[in-house]
Amino acid sequence: MNDVTGLVILLTYLAVSASAISGALEARKHDMDIVGALTVAFVTAFGGGTMRDLLLGRIPIFWLVDQWLSIATFGIAVVTFYILDGVSDRLLVIPDALGLGFFSILGATYAMQMDLSLLIIALMGVVTGVFGGILRDVLCNTIPSVFKRNTELYATCAFIGTWIFIFLVKLNVGISIASWAGTLVIFALRLFAVRFKLTLPFP
Amino acid sequence: MNDVTGLVILLTYLAVSASAISGALEARKHDMDIVGALTVAFVTAFGGGTMRDLLLGRIPIFWLVDQWLSIATFGIAVVTFYILDGVSDRLLVIPDALGLGFFSILGATYAMQMDLSLLIIALMGVVTGVFGGILRDVLCNTIPSVFKRNTELYATCAFIGTWIFIFLVKLNVGISIASWAGTLVIFALRLFAVRFKLTLPFP
Amino acid sequence: MNDVTGLVILLTYLAVSASAISGALEARKHDMDIVGALTVAFVTAFGGGTMRDLLLGRIPIFWLVDQWLSIATFGIAVVTFYILDGVSDRLLVIPDALGLGFFSILGATYAMQMDLSLLIIALMGVVTGVFGGILRDVLCNTIPSVFKRNTELYATCAFIGTWIFIFLVKLNVGISIASWAGTLVIFALRLFAVRFKLTLPFP
Repeated sequence: MNDVTGLVILLTYLAVSASAISGALEARKHDMDIVGALTVAFVTAFGGGTMRDLLLGRIPIFWLVDQWLSIATFGIAVVTFYILDGVSDRLLVIPDALGLGFFSILGATYAMQMDLSLLIIALMGVVTGVFGGILRDVLCNTIPSVFKRNTELYATCAFIGTWIFIFLVKLNVGISIASWAGTLVIFALRLFAVRFKLTLPFP
Repeated sequence: MNDVTGLVILLTYLAVSASAISGALEARKHDMDIVGALTVAFVTAFGGGTMRDLLLGRIPIFWLVDQWLSIATFGIAVVTFYILDGVSDRLLVIPDALGLGFFSILGATYAMQMDLSLLIIALMGVVTGVFGGILRDVLCNTIPSVFKRNTELYATCAFIGTWIFIFLVKLNVGISIASWAGTLVIFALRLFAVRFKLTLPFP
Repeated sequence: MNDVTGLVILLTYLAVSASAISGALEARKHDMDIVGALTVAFVTAFGGGTMRDLLLGRIPIFWLVDQWLSIATFGIAVVTFYILDGVSDRLLVIPDALGLGFFSILGATYAMQMDLSLLIIALMGVVTGVFGGILRDVLCNTIPSVFKRNTELYATCAFIGTWIFIFLVKLNVGISIASWAGTLVIFALRLFAVRFKLTLPFP
């Protein structure tokens, strides 16, 4: 394993952890028991990638072949549900933004390998990045937070970042550099949007 | 491209457009932002066909290989969300009924190609026709309108029409004629049901 | 067909019937019409197995190739919706617990055939056993009952039973005996949990 692989693995676990924490917290907020917390944590962490794999026909689904992702999600959800107290939403923003960037670019990369058109590649990136959170909110019986008018830019950051990634690849910048650039753009845009409360215009 | 292909394409875009408008309007009604409107529009337009492709194992999913469907949905959702005002539900009934008929018969046709039993073919038709609307309502956190007691016949029209399509094919009427007959029956039944407020009996 | 096959078929239909009844009753409770009742019954009966087949890449999905499952679900849902009155939740507990056990072990068996790791096999068992009920509640626009704090152990029974099944198989007990043991453990645990109102601890 070289350094890049190590970094990718680190990012994957950071992203999955942030999703699992957000799922377990949301479950607790809705008075669920630990089964609810575990399910919502799994769905938040794996939902976007599962949707991506199903749509692209990638079999078996990614989390079936790496049990450590499930073990981590399991452990984090249990600790979050029973022990974590007063974790501020603010603290979660950073790993969550990292996860959004990382998952979106990963989704776009897989779509690119299948030779799909550019818009579809960008959409698959966004779907991978945001669908976990959408399914989390559906299971909690609320309107997905990413759809709400007062939510700071979220899917939008993923959309912009995947396009930058795509253009860099088309410009023959190496895929590795393009990936990091895309991930960082999404990460930075999201933090910027949260900091300055940027939302989309509505009628 | 001959005339029939042209007509099929026209119908596809009409059906997708009607679904996208209905999705974007529903999103606006639930105070979503444009991300919500786009997602709900996509899910309404592509949800039934995606479910069909996943269940039948048709890879890649239909909308991944024709980006113009996504471009159309994208554009229509944006215009609907920001500009369209006072579009009456009534006006939408006609393209929506067309979409119901067209999508249902398309779903049944694909299922037929896989040599499934007749009931399953009919069910796949109905699933293709109605699941987009069901997923739209799930994302908007409401009970699917097609399940409600005061909703005029909807899935029922699709069910009857797909059976007529199936029987015509079994009677060796050409598949093209059978398709048009099925689509028109569903279209006409749905308009009839709306006009005369036909609902299903309940206990 | 020998006796074991006959018993498996009997169990399948019992499990599907219990799910279909629970789906149709839930739909009626939420003021749906028969289309709602049928859809919710199908989703409750087939949702877990469909999720399993999609995740494992088993194509075609199980209920597409045995129309009698659909016919049974259809018939049971219609009778439940229009005729069944005052069926106590208590009466449903027994076939439902049987279904939970049977579906979970079946899911774990299929996952085992794909040589996945033990935790993933257990998870696939639980998903197969409980996801039908989760999707039922999502369609009815409520928080899934299996996530609620006052719900007696449900997914937990499936989780314990699939692990027992897995260990017995690893101990070279025949798969048939292991299956029955796992199914019975889940069945008994669930009835025990309902009888003594066992719930999971929460913070």
